[in-house]
Amino acid sequence: MSDEEIQSDGGPAEAISFVYGFPDPDSFPIGDLIAACQTALREKGRTALQYGPTRGYGPLLDYLLAKFQRDEGLTLDRENLLISAGASQALDMICCLFTRPGDTVLVEAPTYHETLMILRDYGLNILQVPLDEKGLLVGELEQRLEWLAATGRRPKFIYVIPDFQNPSGLTLSLERREKLIALAHRYETLIVEDDVYRDLCYEARYAGSTLPSLYALDEGRTVLRLGSFSKIIAAGLRLGWIMAAPQWLNRLMDSGLAAAAGGANPFVSHVVADYCLRGLLEPHIATLVARYRLKRDTMLAALDANMPAEVSWTRPMGGFFVWLTLPPGLAAQEVRTEGEQRGITFLPGPPFFAEGGGENNVRLAFSYLSPQDIEKGVAVLGEVTRKRTNK
Amino acid sequence: MSDEEIQSDGGPAEAISFVYGFPDPDSFPIGDLIAACQTALREKGRTALQYGPTRGYGPLLDYLLAKFQRDEGLTLDRENLLISAGASQALDMICCLFTRPGDTVLVEAPTYHETLMILRDYGLNILQVPLDEKGLLVGELEQRLEWLAATGRRPKFIYVIPDFQNPSGLTLSLERREKLIALAHRYETLIVEDDVYRDLCYEARYAGSTLPSLYALDEGRTVLRLGSFSKIIAAGLRLGWIMAAPQWLNRLMDSGLAAAAGGANPFVSHVVADYCLRGLLEPHIATLVARYRLKRDTMLAALDANMPAEVSWTRPMGGFFVWLTLPPGLAAQEVRTEGEQRGITFLPGPPFFAEGGGENNVRLAFSYLSPQDIEKGVAVLGEVTRKRTNK
Repeated sequence: MSDEEIQSDGGPAEAISFVYGFPDPDSFPIGDLIAACQTALREKGRTALQYGPTRGYGPLLDYLLAKFQRDEGLTLDRENLLISAGASQALDMICCLFTRPGDTVLVEAPTYHETLMILRDYGLNILQVPLDEKGLLVGELEQRLEWLAATGRRPKFIYVIPDFQNPSGLTLSLERREKLIALAHRYETLIVEDDVYRDLCYEARYAGSTLPSLYALDEGRTVLRLGSFSKIIAAGLRLGWIMAAPQWLNRLMDSGLAAAAGGANPFVSHVVADYCLRGLLEPHIATLVARYRLKRDTMLAALDANMPAEVSWTRPMGGFFVWLTLPPGLAAQEVRTEGEQRGITFLPGPPFFAEGGGENNVRLAFSYLSPQDIEKGVAVLGEVTRKRTNK
Repeated sequence: MSDEEIQSDGGPAEAISFVYGFPDPDSFPIGDLIAACQTALREKGRTALQYGPTRGYGPLLDYLLAKFQRDEGLTLDRENLLISAGASQALDMICCLFTRPGDTVLVEAPTYHETLMILRDYGLNILQVPLDEKGLLVGELEQRLEWLAATGRRPKFIYVIPDFQNPSGLTLSLERREKLIALAHRYETLIVEDDVYRDLCYEARYAGSTLPSLYALDEGRTVLRLGSFSKIIAAGLRLGWIMAAPQWLNRLMDSGLAAAAGGANPFVSHVVADYCLRGLLEPHIATLVARYRLKRDTMLAALDANMPAEVSWTRPMGGFFVWLTLPPGLAAQEVRTEGEQRGITFLPGPPFFAEGGGENNVRLAFSYLSPQDIEKGVAVLGEVTRKRTNK
């Protein structure tokens, strides 16, 4: 993407944009990826460039299995994994194969806005369940499930981002994870666990969140878990995976798209496998954690220093986002309009809500900007907000 | 894909398999792609590895525009193109956004079997229209369209592979192309033109079929045309494009998948753009044409020499496939069973038919095998078929 093209999506040119939930391009391991391309093509070009097995490239699957074992104590085999062209393509496949228009799905409020777009493309009826600082309100979820059951409907899945959620930055508590899984079993629905930020935890050891995934807690019975290399190597590679019980994965494997495509990107899979199998991913994640932790700390300190008392925000333990709540009556859109005149921009809350809300919320991405720009941008945001709050 | 994995899909190990409609792995331009990876990552790593613009990487779009202008005299602009993760992903997007379960679509009989799988995944009602040596029988198509209209149904699209069709190898005549387009207009339906073999024409100049595409004939009003780099550079890259009027493309561009994915594979797009912009694709296509022409000629000569008079087959002007018709009463499955005992295998006809048929048809792919194996394999096929024909 050229800078020009970035700007066309993210606000006025030259603005400090808190819009992009993008990895930091200064973090891309360009030299190591050049070497991985050379090795993959030179040693395995005939398979890297051909249609591949539907499940994905075997050595990449095996690398991931070893990683899950080491980082999370999860014992899986290849039958539990499928390589996808990123987490969004995985969600798209799940919608195609497990839903029909008019089916109901449940999401967090707020949730990742581009997931909502995918769900809407499939004509799904989307219900939202609010969050608090411990994540999804499982009591509210239970009420909606009960009401659906009473009206003869069973949702197809509950879409949840348990770690360092996009857009809120919040982490679902262990107690609620367990309750969520119990509810999914009781009401016979699936959980789609979008877990793309897990490795970017700024409070624990280098390679993982402190809490087990929904998949691990459930032993994979009712959870389809999505992961990605987008945040931990590079988004432009478009490579991720789905972890699930064979009964779910086999339906995805038998799909026309999986068959016709011959596996999600064999070439990129070979490159990423070479990179990972040389032991480069683990130290790279450690540098990413240090890099993004500094940005998060910079943003939180700048918010502490600049925002008026009436504004609150989340303190994410990982991921890319901080979520602000402006005082009632102060619309995020109004702050953005003035902010853009002063050289900053961000996404207001409403696109992150399936059924409305978020008018006084702000999503700030800290992943893409430099610490200097984060400080400058938050200072401007603070000025604009203070002025509007004091009116 | 390992040889073992290939064998698990394509018949017994050590067999000569006519199953694979794969590019010849000896043709992959490995050295040039290594160089393209280096250049793309070294010079543009920060954009190649990031989320990209939804439509695709600009220089790649511009290369394709120049190619269509030069090869086909087609004047287009970027608004007419969208980069996809291969033609199958493009078809998948079209099904997601332009159809709902229960909608009707029309296909050729036979047609590409994995397209049928995708259409079924979307719950579509698939009707088939037979072919003869000039391709789709437009009179039969008109009857089906008339019958649908009389029962108040309008098909969402007609899926056609006009050049060197998979599986038949046939090419749709110019007269029928024009009638097909007129019918699509009269009955207000779209045409999805799957055009992935166009450059692999063995009868004309290096870079194209002698017949204009449906898109060109229609000036793009009612045609969505799919193309791919899979057959002309490498299938493992998973990169293709959709050519259509902005009114259709904009719906695809606004989709959740397109937005969330940030463009189809920015990294591979940069690599392919570098390869193409250095002028490497045109001479490469010329070598592919020579390579596959030899294989096609070898197969046709072997069929002439070995098959009994009761068997007929197509004489494709391009592409990867020859389609055999065995005499009535001789099932392709029966020939395959005995063939596999003698070390050859192929796909029988039925999977290529949406509504039944093909029991005495055989698809032979000549793209993947060496000329020596083609000769050996057809000799065995001839023996088995002669024996069964004389019974």
